[in-house]
Amino acid sequence: MNWEELSAHLQNLPTPDPRFAKRMQERLDSLAKPKGSLGRLEEMAVRLAGITASTQPEMVHKRVVVFCGDHGVTEEGVSAYPSEVTGWMMETFARGQAAINVLARQAGAEVKVVDVGSKADRVPKGVVNVRVRPGTANMARGPAMSRAEAEQALAVGWKQAETAKEQGVQLLAAGEMGIGNTTAAAAVAAVLTQRDATTLTGMGTGLGDQGVRRKAAVILQSLRINQPDSSDPMDVLAKVGGLEIAAMAGFMLGAAFYRIPVVIDGLISSVAALAAVHMAPQVREILFASHLSVEPAHGIVLEKLGLTPLLDAEMRLGEGSGAVLAFPLMDAALRLSQEMALLSELGIHSQS
Amino acid sequence: MNWEELSAHLQNLPTPDPRFAKRMQERLDSLAKPKGSLGRLEEMAVRLAGITASTQPEMVHKRVVVFCGDHGVTEEGVSAYPSEVTGWMMETFARGQAAINVLARQAGAEVKVVDVGSKADRVPKGVVNVRVRPGTANMARGPAMSRAEAEQALAVGWKQAETAKEQGVQLLAAGEMGIGNTTAAAAVAAVLTQRDATTLTGMGTGLGDQGVRRKAAVILQSLRINQPDSSDPMDVLAKVGGLEIAAMAGFMLGAAFYRIPVVIDGLISSVAALAAVHMAPQVREILFASHLSVEPAHGIVLEKLGLTPLLDAEMRLGEGSGAVLAFPLMDAALRLSQEMALLSELGIHSQS
Repeated sequence: MNWEELSAHLQNLPTPDPRFAKRMQERLDSLAKPKGSLGRLEEMAVRLAGITASTQPEMVHKRVVVFCGDHGVTEEGVSAYPSEVTGWMMETFARGQAAINVLARQAGAEVKVVDVGSKADRVPKGVVNVRVRPGTANMARGPAMSRAEAEQALAVGWKQAETAKEQGVQLLAAGEMGIGNTTAAAAVAAVLTQRDATTLTGMGTGLGDQGVRRKAAVILQSLRINQPDSSDPMDVLAKVGGLEIAAMAGFMLGAAFYRIPVVIDGLISSVAALAAVHMAPQVREILFASHLSVEPAHGIVLEKLGLTPLLDAEMRLGEGSGAVLAFPLMDAALRLSQEMALLSELGIHSQS
Repeated sequence: MNWEELSAHLQNLPTPDPRFAKRMQERLDSLAKPKGSLGRLEEMAVRLAGITASTQPEMVHKRVVVFCGDHGVTEEGVSAYPSEVTGWMMETFARGQAAINVLARQAGAEVKVVDVGSKADRVPKGVVNVRVRPGTANMARGPAMSRAEAEQALAVGWKQAETAKEQGVQLLAAGEMGIGNTTAAAAVAAVLTQRDATTLTGMGTGLGDQGVRRKAAVILQSLRINQPDSSDPMDVLAKVGGLEIAAMAGFMLGAAFYRIPVVIDGLISSVAALAAVHMAPQVREILFASHLSVEPAHGIVLEKLGLTPLLDAEMRLGEGSGAVLAFPLMDAALRLSQEMALLSELGIHSQS
């Protein structure tokens, strides 16, 4: 699908069906428990019913898609690790030995790895090779990529949502791998939230205080040089974003089009979500927050999205790791709605 | 086991083995991820290694024990539901149709239901009948129970930990069912945390504002009439506690003795934990917080325990429901420590 076709779809994203959401709430209220006592698990079940237009949503076929891309801005010394690590981690994903592989196995989910823009010498077997370009340019010196490249990356993500739909996937998570991508994500977040970049800059994979200060300065310089237009999310993604960030935004937009719920992970995927919401507000309806990471920008971006994380585990790994940890909670919410006794079977009535 | 034998054990509770905790941390630091990036999952794995004195702790055999008891204070109109519901819910547990049954099935855990003091006419088949007395007395008029009864209830809980050990259970959760027990729990919390009872009083299973005010007044009256001794946790449990609360405290003390980790749930089990910690501080070392409930006292009690919840799902159901939701997170922490690639296999080194 090219950008013109895709952007036409953005005007017509579906919204959840309130009739099914209402029926799910009625079902939950009829179960053998005090009304509302399952808290946000109930909210999840209600939202899933609305998104899937079903009173018995099934989330059996689960998948996390890990979008990989490199960042030219690593030249400025903004990361604790060199760009080569992106390729090494793709190898580790392919061998099933990274954190996301372990967590997905436990959650009963598939892992799909998509190279949308790494600089790796080779793309390992099992990794989808749809590289738009080998890493972005250094955004501290000019735009990270052209607008056409950002659109192409976005279409790569949309395509992954389409493939998931064709293959019967019922629940998605968005993950990423890209050395330097907390720098790009903080830059995009600064533009889209209109907040000071310095307060949004965090340690990433493990910078010390001095490294964080240097990183903040590089982000400020990138914003100054590129002057991204905050009213044009594609301009922001192209100038100070990343290939995997644009792809995740497209993935979420596509998932909204195909009515597949998406669990977002840490800062990078949340920033992609924010960019997607700026393109089409309805995409928010299919998004679920999982955890709150230690990156200072994450809570701010989630608040802008109007999403509340379920977990606070002080994680900062990426790969979709926190998102996949939320899968069992969604399973739990749906099983409760289907397997619990009804209040009417017990003859219980509240006195209040 | 009688109280004299049990209290002798309390003087000699084991503590985690720091050598195994250290080896687990070294293992985690050697994995293919930035150091510390798995956040509190790493902390869990480290603690589990210390508790079990193993570098490869196994948490395959899991069990949630639901302690049931009734409360005479319900005469004062402190709950949205009548005491009969405790018995009806025991029937529902026995049929496998309550929330905790569904959640335990999903987490691969057993449910064991123990009637330590309900007023139910009959104890359903499958529920362990070790009733100390049929509900407590109304604490607003005098002590909820005698000291000897509280000790007996505590021993019931300890016995459940012993049985779990004999049966090879590797991970426990503490749950409860008892109409009126947020009233008793708030009273115990007020004494042990030295906080004002009014700020600790919540909606329980579903009181409105007026009901919450009445409940706070009943708690204040119970404290005034009984004058529980804050330096004597058994006195507090007897005068303003509950049979299931005392049993849970004994359960946690027993689990500490047998080196079995226990996940606590909402306010009631956390108050039981606080009472247990007042009897033997080492018990804290085997406790894991799961979620933060909407009861206002819960966060305060967890802070006193020095435990941080992983989940914030705005739940207020009890039964051990939140605790069991944390089981997959513990599984995840251990699997990550065992199944991930090593950094040395990748040749990755940090630049910082």
